[in-house]
Amino acid sequence: MEHHLANLADVTLPVVGVHHSPMTQKFGLPRQPNLVDVRSVIELLPPYDVFDAVVGLDNFSHLWLHWYFHANRQATQTEHSQAQFRTKIRPPRLGGNDKVGVFASRSMYRPSQMGMSVVRLQGIETRQGQLLIHVIGADLLDKTPILDIRPYMSYSDAIIDSHDGYADAKPSTCQVHVCQDAKCQFDKIVKDLQTEGLMNDHLLTSLHDADWHIITALIAQDPRPAYRQKVSQREYVMRYKNIDVRFVQRTQGQLEVIGVDKIA
Amino acid sequence: MEHHLANLADVTLPVVGVHHSPMTQKFGLPRQPNLVDVRSVIELLPPYDVFDAVVGLDNFSHLWLHWYFHANRQATQTEHSQAQFRTKIRPPRLGGNDKVGVFASRSMYRPSQMGMSVVRLQGIETRQGQLLIHVIGADLLDKTPILDIRPYMSYSDAIIDSHDGYADAKPSTCQVHVCQDAKCQFDKIVKDLQTEGLMNDHLLTSLHDADWHIITALIAQDPRPAYRQKVSQREYVMRYKNIDVRFVQRTQGQLEVIGVDKIA
Repeated sequence: MEHHLANLADVTLPVVGVHHSPMTQKFGLPRQPNLVDVRSVIELLPPYDVFDAVVGLDNFSHLWLHWYFHANRQATQTEHSQAQFRTKIRPPRLGGNDKVGVFASRSMYRPSQMGMSVVRLQGIETRQGQLLIHVIGADLLDKTPILDIRPYMSYSDAIIDSHDGYADAKPSTCQVHVCQDAKCQFDKIVKDLQTEGLMNDHLLTSLHDADWHIITALIAQDPRPAYRQKVSQREYVMRYKNIDVRFVQRTQGQLEVIGVDKIA
Repeated sequence: MEHHLANLADVTLPVVGVHHSPMTQKFGLPRQPNLVDVRSVIELLPPYDVFDAVVGLDNFSHLWLHWYFHANRQATQTEHSQAQFRTKIRPPRLGGNDKVGVFASRSMYRPSQMGMSVVRLQGIETRQGQLLIHVIGADLLDKTPILDIRPYMSYSDAIIDSHDGYADAKPSTCQVHVCQDAKCQFDKIVKDLQTEGLMNDHLLTSLHDADWHIITALIAQDPRPAYRQKVSQREYVMRYKNIDVRFVQRTQGQLEVIGVDKIA
């Protein structure tokens, strides 16, 4: 087949917004959207931060986000990912053993370095001149560049009878046991913040009781690498807002939160 | 909120493939995917045209395509669409009267100029060194640049209970009546092609009886602009492969195919 695109080897997409999230590190980030009710905020950037551009969006319950894997090492090393194009990757859903083609996966190592996520829309607000879109269930890191936002339309997007290869069900979750000391440490941090009068509504520094449910739900996803099935006594640390949460595996399918530390 | 993306005003995405379709003109192109069973082909481009990159893809029934609105006038005029950012657009679903924000729509006039479509996967083949992905139901023009391909995963992508604003159901379709002369003209073109021995499997020059069903299904979508509710005697022409199909409105909700001409 002939084609006439010799002059279109790539396209340039503007960054229309930036994602603000309690998840500032990759470890613990949910592997798909809507697995955990993490709350986060998209800040639209100039010249796209005009209210007219989102009029009518609040009639939709869900949004598609398109975004750029800015934290990929290869993305920061080369402007074009072509040089480091990986043809096959190991999806976590296959236990990290089997490989599939990059186009048969939702891996971050795709040539476009572009992610897509459907999230719940919580609300839209303008605050101090900023246009903020509050969402629930995002699987994006803090500071992720947003390339596009569009409404979810179930008549077109929800294919009920699709056949989903190796990803035909939600990933299973672990039981999470909480060591009493860890919960006490968390409660003390929350109390100290209240005492210090630091409980503003800033996404990264505020901490509430409700955050504890999110933290345990994130750990229930088992953030450890794919060889996690093997029992290991290694201690893992997940960062959430301004605290580090430590956990270990006790038995098969059960994780225990053993400590919570405030980041200096 | 602070952010540290001052150096990331845009991102560059490689074109990984090109879409080959019987729809070579915008008029008649379905407004969403899966409204009509149009068959089309994605040709992967070097260096992405390696079979390894699609291994496992055939276990999925549906694919997400991400693509670039290359036929937008503004896209060809300016490399960056920012200069021509439209904050509000008129979605066809609102009859072309009411405006919504561009991020509350699936309009082509979005800053990213990026489209997304879920399509059915028909098959993957290598032919004469080309890696071809055959799909059904695409709403993309011929020669559309493909930015990414990934599997549809219903556990993550199919939100059944979403609230879909102004787009809560499939668009209604028109009845299509076929003038006997038009069908005779179509049959004669098919017969002539057979006689001339031109019935190879080339997507754009082959023409079969099955194409007639696709043509009438495309017209049943009513490709006319949003003021189509008004009865008009104007003749419209839709191009499909190498034929032009002429139709008019007879009464409210009914269109008639009045002629078929082979393109010289």
